[in-house]
Formats: sequence, C-alpha cells, structure tokens
Amino acid sequence: MGNQAELASPVRSPVEGGDPRVAADGFRRSLAEFATGVTVIATSVNGERFGLTSNSFSSVSLDPPLVLWSIRRESKSFAAFAACTHFSVNVLAEDQIGLSQHFARSGPDKFKELDSAAGHGDAPLLAGVAASFECIRSQIHDAGDHLLLIGEVLRYSRYDRQPLLFVKGRYAVSADHPDTRIFGADGNAGRLEDGEERVLSNLMIRAYSAIASRLERGRQTAGLGLTLMQARLLRAAATCPDRTLDELMPELLLDFNASRNLLESVVSLGLVAVDGQGRVRLTVDGEGRLHAIVAHAHANEEIMFQGIADTDLATVRRVLNTMVSKQLGGASSAAAR
Amino acid sequence: MGNQAELASPVRSPVEGGDPRVAADGFRRSLAEFATGVTVIATSVNGERFGLTSNSFSSVSLDPPLVLWSIRRESKSFAAFAACTHFSVNVLAEDQIGLSQHFARSGPDKFKELDSAAGHGDAPLLAGVAASFECIRSQIHDAGDHLLLIGEVLRYSRYDRQPLLFVKGRYAVSADHPDTRIFGADGNAGRLEDGEERVLSNLMIRAYSAIASRLERGRQTAGLGLTLMQARLLRAAATCPDRTLDELMPELLLDFNASRNLLESVVSLGLVAVDGQGRVRLTVDGEGRLHAIVAHAHANEEIMFQGIADTDLATVRRVLNTMVSKQLGGASSAAAR
Repeated sequence: MGNQAELASPVRSPVEGGDPRVAADGFRRSLAEFATGVTVIATSVNGERFGLTSNSFSSVSLDPPLVLWSIRRESKSFAAFAACTHFSVNVLAEDQIGLSQHFARSGPDKFKELDSAAGHGDAPLLAGVAASFECIRSQIHDAGDHLLLIGEVLRYSRYDRQPLLFVKGRYAVSADHPDTRIFGADGNAGRLEDGEERVLSNLMIRAYSAIASRLERGRQTAGLGLTLMQARLLRAAATCPDRTLDELMPELLLDFNASRNLLESVVSLGLVAVDGQGRVRLTVDGEGRLHAIVAHAHANEEIMFQGIADTDLATVRRVLNTMVSKQLGGASSAAAR
Repeated sequence: MGNQAELASPVRSPVEGGDPRVAADGFRRSLAEFATGVTVIATSVNGERFGLTSNSFSSVSLDPPLVLWSIRRESKSFAAFAACTHFSVNVLAEDQIGLSQHFARSGPDKFKELDSAAGHGDAPLLAGVAASFECIRSQIHDAGDHLLLIGEVLRYSRYDRQPLLFVKGRYAVSADHPDTRIFGADGNAGRLEDGEERVLSNLMIRAYSAIASRLERGRQTAGLGLTLMQARLLRAAATCPDRTLDELMPELLLDFNASRNLLESVVSLGLVAVDGQGRVRLTVDGEGRLHAIVAHAHANEEIMFQGIADTDLATVRRVLNTMVSKQLGGASSAAAR
C-alpha cells in the first residue's frame, strides 16, 4: 500500500485532495479537470419527449457499436429514461450553450419550439449539433446515485461543426495544441515555401495562452482568494444589478447547477447578497474585492505589455477586430449557401 | 419510428452518417466530435506496473464516489486490469502529450525512468498531472469488445494545471468560450472601468477562431478532399523525409493508433508510400496535393488579410511574439519557485 511519505517526494503536492466522501466539493472540482464535450440525451416515452444535458457520455465498443452515459436517480427525467427503449445522444456545437442551459433546467416539453426531428424509436434529434447517435438501449447497471445506460448505436451522424467543451466547470472551445504546426512556421526543419510562416493562427493561440496563464497565475499569487468564476459572478452582479441568478446565467456561461453552487460560495464569503425575490447584488465587501481584482488584472497586463508601444497595441486590436468582423460576414454567407 | 423524410426537413444533412456496423471509420470520427480529456490508467499486479492511455473516463456517482473507464479486450494490458484490485486515473496536463504517446504504445515497464509514486493498492501515480483518482475496483461489466471498469474513489488530488484535450482525433487545449466576458469588454451593459477593454485575450481567441474556421471551410470547399490531419501528415512527410511513423509522431501530435489509421488512409489514396523499413515518403501525387493545399491556404489568408496593411500585419506578428516570449520567461520562473 502506498503511504504519504512515498507520495510526497516525486509527486508535487496537490492544490486540494483527500477522501471524496469527506470533501465532495473538492472531488467535484477534481473531476472537472477531465475535459468533456456537452450532450443533450433525449428520448420519447408514450409520445412524450424528454431531454437533459449531460457530460457523462463515453464511447465503449466499436463492434458491436456501444456508447454509455449515466443519469442521476434524482433527475426529474429519471423515470422516463429508466423506462425508455431508445435514446439519442446529441453532441452540442460551440454555439449551443443556450441549448445546454435549456436542457439543464427542468420544464414540461423542453422540445417545444425547438428545431428537432424524430430519430430511431422517435428519440428527438436536435438541429445544429456536431454529431448525433441514435441508440437502442441494451444494458442498464446500478452505479451509486446514478443509473448507467449503455446503448447500441443504430445510426450515427456527423456534421461540420466545432464542438462545445466543458472544462473546469465552465464552457470552453478547443484550440489546436500550441505545439501543432499547421503548415510550417518551424524555423529549423526546412520550410516548404517562404510564404508559409504567414499563417498567424498558431502564433495567436500561443499568445492567447500566454495572456490567459499570466492572468490566472496573477489571480492565484495575489491571494485574492477567488476562482475565475467567482470573480466573474461578482463582475456580472456589478454590471447587471438586481437580476436573478436565472437572468445572470447568460453572463456566466455555466449550467444551472454549477451557477447555483457558485452563487452559494460567494454568498457564504459575504461578497454577494440575495434578496427575497432572488435578486443578486454585490455587498460593500464584494465591491471592494471586485475593484481589487480588476486593478490586479490591469497590473498583470502592464507586465505583459511592457516594452510594447501603445500604438502597436492599438494596431493589434484593430487588425484582430477586422479579422473577427470578416468571419462574421463569412459565417453568415456560409449559412446562406 | 422516425423516417428519412422527417429527418430531412429541420435537421441539416450530415457530412457523413449511417449504420456504424457498416461504416466503422465514420462512426469513429463521429465519436471524436465528443471532446475528452486524456488519462493514463495504471495499476500494479503482483509487483508489476501497467498503464495505458485512455479517453473513456467518465465520472458516475458522487455518493458513493464512482468513476468508470473501459479497456479493449485486445489490449496487451487486458489481463492485468481484468485481475487488478485497484487502479489509478491520471488526468494529463496540456504539456504531457509525450506521456500520452508513451502509454499508448506497448512496452515492458512503461513507468521505468518516469516520475511516479505508489498510491492506494500500489497503483502508480504520475507526476505533473492535472488530477488523479485512486480507486478500488468495484464493478466490471462486459460491453462488446471492451470491458467496463467501475472504481470507487478512495482519494482524489487536484493540481494547478491546464488539462490536455483530445478533440476530433487530435490533441488540443481549451480556451475560454468566446462569449465569455472575462472582465468586461461588453459595449452595452456599462463597463466597470475604461481600462478594462484593454484585456486582449478575448479578442485574440475570437480572431483565432476566425482564421481557423476560414481555413477549415476553405479546405472543404476547395474539394481538396483531405482532412486537416491528412494534410499535416503530407506536410510532415515532406519536411522530414524518410522517417518512420514513430519518428513522425511528435510532428503529428496524435496517439499511435490514430496516426497509424491516418497513415493507412493517405497510403490508400496514393499520396504517401512506405518502404520496407517503414520509412514514409510523399509520392509525386502527394507532392502535388500538398502544394495545392498550401497554395489554397495562402489564397484564404489573402481574403482574411485583405484591406489590412502589410506593416500592420508585421506589427501584430511582432507584438504576439513578444507576448509569447514573455510567457516562456514567466513560466520558467514559476517552475523554479
């Protein structure tokens, strides 16, 4: 059996750790280090449609083609999925955060007014997804507070989309790994053509990582004591005062359970207060903390931008904005074709 | 039951789709639309250590704390994991592609010369990971060509790292969703301070997406008929001629199985040839195709950069390079503390 002394030497100390039965919150945060896509799992039972947001999807077998996911026993849709013969797995695309949030809440017919079709076994298929899998349920297994469902895939569909990600408890998109060389830009190994190094995207993702990791490191070392998402909630509450958590959710880009946990955490820190109508507002302490965080972000940027002329930074901003606006034009013309 | 006519109207036609028993490759590509993290699962049986790369991990239950993963019955480590009492789940960080590739290959003691410690049940824990879970095996289930293993988590550990991602069959990193407002930059809802809009990272991730999606769209509409990874393999074979697939893998940033499938696909298209020693080389057709792709990438960039002065582009490149080099300095000083 391993013991603490053995662990201490080669493996760095964790930020947090322990027995998940004792510290469920830390366990949840640790699980969130494993990045996932976001799916909406759907079914139709006796003509009624059910769907819920899940990131528990996993591929299992190619021959026969099997996939799995798990549903919480306390879920409002539990009875439906426990009884279903078929289900569909809809892998959400990066512009479908709204759908993810919609299906994370409870409600009567969640598919009403949504663009969907009926797949195998009448399980609903959502439009605009990255991929979908139409399954016949083949096995179920008890697994603690969840039920594990294994489905055999009858039909798969892949669309030309970028998938939505869920990483460290928040929505994200994927970027090529910075070590990837798209078409060159490697100084040593002989470029195919001189023009190749003009491809900017690799450089941009590296620079993005540089800014993001410096901000993250800055926030941690400053001892401001808040996570990025807690800081964002303070920011959202300051920008849009007297809104309910439901109304703030689009600002936070979190699913409902995650945002409720987040709200509880800043309330318990005395940074945010919630009134009888559920309206969220910063406390005086919260305002002070937010100002300190913003000041710190600026100080970090100062270091990042040290030695770069203001006019150059203005040029970067202008060029990047031009590129973004071209994509918007390009995307709508692509949608029209 | 759904039928094709119903499906056609609201849901757009897929790029590919069908019965996974008929088209396993397309099924695999569709599964890869669901983003995942990358784990190394490890165990110790009779004093011998085993480990393999897997992205089948999923969290299942909080109370009791359960996680699952699945192992291919044909895996060389199958017997060990089928017999083990404990296993560890090591969630890899973004700079651990090397470990991912190492544990995706077969070999004697894969842990030799690696920085690791013994956890519960002597299951190896790797250093430098984003998180780890030490589990006692609690259930196994047959699931097609895989065996499903459910473990009860005895100890979790979370480290201060960014996780490695596997998306669409290639390694990736996560970036905040572009709709996220880190500290402001929303034109309408009242900025907290003027200086806030100076945070560049949001703008950069949007501009990156713009370039990446235009390149991707361009490659598809040009009818060049290759995936991004196929194009990258041609590029790697051109840049580093007469290397084996094993030697090319660092260029490709793919795990071993994925790179072998990739190689087979371009060989069958007649674009690449492999000699008796396993050395990979472009065919004449392959050279032609690569030049067409590079020319096309440049044409796409012309559109992207239209109306932007060359001097401005040079400024962008210089500023971004400065930021990247500052991060390298910052990262090494952070590692030293």
